Amino acid sequence: MNSTTMKNLFDLPNPRPNHEQFDDLIPDHGVKIERIISTGQTTPKGEWYDQDHDEWVILIQGQATLEYEKGHTVSLQSGDHILIPAHQKHRVAHTSTDPPCIWLAVHGALTSK
Amino acid sequence: MNSTTMKNLFDLPNPRPNHEQFDDLIPDHGVKIERIISTGQTTPKGEWYDQDHDEWVILIQGQATLEYEKGHTVSLQSGDHILIPAHQKHRVAHTSTDPPCIWLAVHGALTSK
Repeated sequence: MNSTTMKNLFDLPNPRPNHEQFDDLIPDHGVKIERIISTGQTTPKGEWYDQDHDEWVILIQGQATLEYEKGHTVSLQSGDHILIPAHQKHRVAHTSTDPPCIWLAVHGALTSK
Repeated sequence: MNSTTMKNLFDLPNPRPNHEQFDDLIPDHGVKIERIISTGQTTPKGEWYDQDHDEWVILIQGQATLEYEKGHTVSLQSGDHILIPAHQKHRVAHTSTDPPCIWLAVHGALTSK
């Protein structure tokens, strides 16, 4: 059996952390795949993620809202996925607590430059 | 609204296809993210996937079994994810029909070489 290398996305820490938790699902060799657990946390108002790399993110569980600097917002439900190109400024305006948000994010050079 | 760029992983074709269906979730610029819908299909016995790239795969819905050329098998449930390094020969030995399997696969250079 090689199942020691298998993990489950829904195995959450117990008790749940009070902070937002980031777990690398594979080591970062240029492409990072991470799980993010959010339980109500948001990006402070007026602060923006401004990333040097592209990010593709899918919300597997929960509900969340992304806000873009240009003014529009996007509400995400379970299964919704979206590509956030590098330097597209955004913030997390809402994350559900119950159920907690489980995000899967892929970071890297995902678009043509 | 920029929500035209948002899609949902659980939006399945209706009626479901009889074949295995592969959908690119982002265009392939060196990293490919795809959704695979399997409804009972398997890799023919004795045939192996022998990929030039690494693949990280997560089963979001359904049950499936992977078999490795070295002889061991791994059963996957919803949320299980596994890294398949390039040239690790494997086949899909089982996929559930009801519910259909929804896989999320990331292909690219994911490991150190």
